[in-house]
Amino acid sequence: MITNQVPNSELEKLIEAARQEPGRALEQEFYSAREFHTADMRSVFRKQWLLAGHVSSIPERGQYFLFDIDKESIIIVRENEDCVNAFYNVCRHRGSRVCLEKEGRRKLLTCPYHAWTYGLDGMLKAARLMPEGFKKEEYGLHACHIRLFEGLIFINLSNGTLPDFDEAYRSMLPLARQQGLATAKIAFKQSYPTKANWKLVAENFMECYHCQPAHPEYCVVHPQDQVLAFGAGPGSGSDEAAAAYQPTLDLWEAESSTMGYLNDTIDAGVFSLGMQQAVRYPINPQKGFLSETIDGSPACKKLMGDFRQADGGETALAFNPFSYVLASNDFAVMFRWTPRDEMNTDVEVTWLVHEDAEENVDYDPRNVVHVWDTTLKQDKKITEDNQSGVCSESYQPGPYSTQEARNVVFKQWYLDQLELLL
Amino acid sequence: MITNQVPNSELEKLIEAARQEPGRALEQEFYSAREFHTADMRSVFRKQWLLAGHVSSIPERGQYFLFDIDKESIIIVRENEDCVNAFYNVCRHRGSRVCLEKEGRRKLLTCPYHAWTYGLDGMLKAARLMPEGFKKEEYGLHACHIRLFEGLIFINLSNGTLPDFDEAYRSMLPLARQQGLATAKIAFKQSYPTKANWKLVAENFMECYHCQPAHPEYCVVHPQDQVLAFGAGPGSGSDEAAAAYQPTLDLWEAESSTMGYLNDTIDAGVFSLGMQQAVRYPINPQKGFLSETIDGSPACKKLMGDFRQADGGETALAFNPFSYVLASNDFAVMFRWTPRDEMNTDVEVTWLVHEDAEENVDYDPRNVVHVWDTTLKQDKKITEDNQSGVCSESYQPGPYSTQEARNVVFKQWYLDQLELLL
Amino acid sequence: MITNQVPNSELEKLIEAARQEPGRALEQEFYSAREFHTADMRSVFRKQWLLAGHVSSIPERGQYFLFDIDKESIIIVRENEDCVNAFYNVCRHRGSRVCLEKEGRRKLLTCPYHAWTYGLDGMLKAARLMPEGFKKEEYGLHACHIRLFEGLIFINLSNGTLPDFDEAYRSMLPLARQQGLATAKIAFKQSYPTKANWKLVAENFMECYHCQPAHPEYCVVHPQDQVLAFGAGPGSGSDEAAAAYQPTLDLWEAESSTMGYLNDTIDAGVFSLGMQQAVRYPINPQKGFLSETIDGSPACKKLMGDFRQADGGETALAFNPFSYVLASNDFAVMFRWTPRDEMNTDVEVTWLVHEDAEENVDYDPRNVVHVWDTTLKQDKKITEDNQSGVCSESYQPGPYSTQEARNVVFKQWYLDQLELLL
Repeated sequence: MITNQVPNSELEKLIEAARQEPGRALEQEFYSAREFHTADMRSVFRKQWLLAGHVSSIPERGQYFLFDIDKESIIIVRENEDCVNAFYNVCRHRGSRVCLEKEGRRKLLTCPYHAWTYGLDGMLKAARLMPEGFKKEEYGLHACHIRLFEGLIFINLSNGTLPDFDEAYRSMLPLARQQGLATAKIAFKQSYPTKANWKLVAENFMECYHCQPAHPEYCVVHPQDQVLAFGAGPGSGSDEAAAAYQPTLDLWEAESSTMGYLNDTIDAGVFSLGMQQAVRYPINPQKGFLSETIDGSPACKKLMGDFRQADGGETALAFNPFSYVLASNDFAVMFRWTPRDEMNTDVEVTWLVHEDAEENVDYDPRNVVHVWDTTLKQDKKITEDNQSGVCSESYQPGPYSTQEARNVVFKQWYLDQLELLL
Repeated sequence: MITNQVPNSELEKLIEAARQEPGRALEQEFYSAREFHTADMRSVFRKQWLLAGHVSSIPERGQYFLFDIDKESIIIVRENEDCVNAFYNVCRHRGSRVCLEKEGRRKLLTCPYHAWTYGLDGMLKAARLMPEGFKKEEYGLHACHIRLFEGLIFINLSNGTLPDFDEAYRSMLPLARQQGLATAKIAFKQSYPTKANWKLVAENFMECYHCQPAHPEYCVVHPQDQVLAFGAGPGSGSDEAAAAYQPTLDLWEAESSTMGYLNDTIDAGVFSLGMQQAVRYPINPQKGFLSETIDGSPACKKLMGDFRQADGGETALAFNPFSYVLASNDFAVMFRWTPRDEMNTDVEVTWLVHEDAEENVDYDPRNVVHVWDTTLKQDKKITEDNQSGVCSESYQPGPYSTQEARNVVFKQWYLDQLELLL
Repeated sequence: MITNQVPNSELEKLIEAARQEPGRALEQEFYSAREFHTADMRSVFRKQWLLAGHVSSIPERGQYFLFDIDKESIIIVRENEDCVNAFYNVCRHRGSRVCLEKEGRRKLLTCPYHAWTYGLDGMLKAARLMPEGFKKEEYGLHACHIRLFEGLIFINLSNGTLPDFDEAYRSMLPLARQQGLATAKIAFKQSYPTKANWKLVAENFMECYHCQPAHPEYCVVHPQDQVLAFGAGPGSGSDEAAAAYQPTLDLWEAESSTMGYLNDTIDAGVFSLGMQQAVRYPINPQKGFLSETIDGSPACKKLMGDFRQADGGETALAFNPFSYVLASNDFAVMFRWTPRDEMNTDVEVTWLVHEDAEENVDYDPRNVVHVWDTTLKQDKKITEDNQSGVCSESYQPGPYSTQEARNVVFKQWYLDQLELLL
């Protein structure tokens, strides 16, 4: 790459200043400068494990889908029953994209430009008319790191030290297994492309301070005590709110345990790889809600995973600030945000149900998606209006409320990632 | 902001070279380089008083409209009968836009993101769940300087020394009052977004050398001697043209004075705040035109301000190179240009009539707007074609004609503003 | 221009590295960095003779067309029967575009802004109200270098040493004359705007390695031995392929010579101005094809130039990597690529037929354009997918096949041009 034009010293100064104000949002440059986009890509998105999709979208040998981030396109393809591979979608000959459709099925990966042909294992199988001395074995597709986690596909774009996946996420396995993610199937997918820096998208998802003014439907589903204490996961509200909520939580956990369900809480903290968290809590015990739907009734007749009867709980898995699963007993929602550039973020959301659930028999997709689709459309709008205001010269980061405690953690985590890079 | 990437020394060299050629337009960089856009914003648009709108659009308490310039959005809101306020449209919490619609009416200014709520005086009235020690009085909306001038609303984005509004514009008051601007109402608004640097838009409006080739309708309305002498205000034509026109002007002024009307001329000159001018002259005495309409007949039955009978005069008020009012006895036109970026300028035009004039009874809006709407569409086109050619490497600033005398003044004024900054 | 922000030393390093790998495509920066676009414009497109159009589009005095490249617009206008001129489309007064329509006819070139009026020879004929001392003779339109070559119009944007046109292209005259290009007329024009760097467009046209996978129609028309040996002109295939093809070529040349036709081959080599080549070869002698149409039958009843009976040959004239003519006995195709910016290239193609050929009588335009229109749409797609992949951080230039021999020559030629500049 052509040399970066803003000296690191300039970025360092801004990072240092940000450290001085842990209780406030970031300064404008972090949300708008191309230089921070470049730094974020290297320090965060080319280092972290990224939730790319779900195995159920590629059950058959040769099925693939593309995962796009920044300037990259990654082919995620099933080689066989036991193996899913990830490759950079860049021909080793002259660099053409090899797969052009967002998803499909192929016996071999043949580049449409000059027909270099790769196996599902990425090895170059055929290249016509190459000069003597050409070694096919040197020209396999560049592999991308990939891990499966209970059906969730994670990739990693790192070309240096690879952060240990298992160590980071092992403790989250039991809740993921109980939810039956590995055998789920996709019910619906939706994109919410957002004209805002990815950190504004991420910060929005880390606090429920905005839920009351901006998400009326969400606040019909979730009771106020939960929104205040736990609205964006453990630690997102004040200690007081958490304490006030604890009896309700305890009562529900006792009931849920009686049904045989696991409800432990994981919070790996600010020094962990991705601030990962896992937790279960009741959706709305006051109203006896069984699912995260507008009236609390299940959206799918077949419950997921180990659930035989609904306990009305929600499983929340946060792998990092841009990879989440939120799940009721009967359906799960996968969320991912990926930066396009400093001012644009792809928001991609996938709803999962039990593999045997039949559309329009066991579930109406409109019920499954309703609450989060509504909420995500609202989030897109408020996040874009946030970006617009942040670009004003008059913008100054204001103080966080007590209900934005998780944002304080994120800010420290994010600055730590940047400093590791510099 | 991230450090500017072109050293000031480079800009200074270009400014110095421009000084050497007072009789020619500016070099390409002034019209196309991002660095000059940044410099213009700081030296001109964040320093000058900007014509933002008219009070008649917000007669009721809580009515507001947004004024956009560059990356800024300003809320202009009526607090009460006596007071109109201007605030940066940026929440003091996390920076969201507070008002999202271009205009509306609100009892309180509540941010849609987290519901921080401000009074119409900008003071923070409510913010839920803030930590102890939080002082609401420190988090009012950032105020923007505002002045009313006979119903015209001016704002100023300066965060340093504020140029004295009254001193600059006091002498223009009598003509503005005679025109009755304070009590006028809006008949029509139109935007002409122009793909050109704001200086090309401004320069176009400062000379009538282009009127004959480019504005046939305008040249039906205005006689050639006036176009030559005065087409873009006093001093826009040659001394010869001015001398040739003087008898016609004198004759008309005598008649107008008999009717009791004021016709003094103000020309504050190149060293003034905004090159402000105020003047009256006849629209077309040869043809007996009473208004700036295609056939000279009034477009509105109710005359404005002090006018009881039409004297066929035009009042021209130039507050600075991007804020103007041009008025016949029966209607007035407000013009403002605001830069979007180095290659895009918003051209916003508002037509005013007497407050009691009734649409389709006293005036047909199509007649009111016809001449200037036609002329502004032509200006948009020629200015965009000018920008296109200026971006050629072969572009060299040519010499001004004698009918572009006002452009010479503008060039000096503009370079002076830039140098004050450096 | 504002000082370039990447030091030349950085570009030099990349050029030097590229030299070390003659058998591979260029690194990413050459295809994506703004700095290389700037360098390419100066070292290649402002130095080379550019195929701009054909005289038959402007047969009458005063007829003109515009040729756009990068930020430039060039007026190509017929002054009289013997003379076609080229001027920068930039008024010498304030820089407006003078001609606004893509083509037209004018007695004089009058700027629409202030009516400065130029003759068809570019001399300023009229400028109203200019100050004393103004010398019209100093303000003619800036001329652009122009040369006619058998009806083809070439222009040159150089403002320094002008490369000798005649010396470079003299040897290509006989084949161009035999083809009758000078008296041809335009049958059809089409644009294929391509989101890719111009070098990816050029490289695509220099190899037929992609023809088999990407151009099924083209490979119906042209036999495999020719595609392999000669698919993108002499020297584009391996020596083996050329040797294998030679007997077929010799046999056809003998037949063609019997008919009295010229078939010499020119290949000026890597050190020439534009790697110019001229050659004739049979389209498909195995199938007896007479023209480059889908079934080999002529698309136009009237043959071009000296051809009295079809010899089934194709004349290929390569003036430089962005200016070509490919011609059957009955029609010719002019190709030009011009950069818009580092990621966008205009691909403009014109089909020519005999001047007396009558549309829908002698030729059906759909037959004339079919093969190349199909092929160019495919090229647009594969080139854009190539650009997309080249922008990945994982992109590494792979080795050329033996059928991409011409790309090796281009790479050396291109790097030579860049180094001449630095």
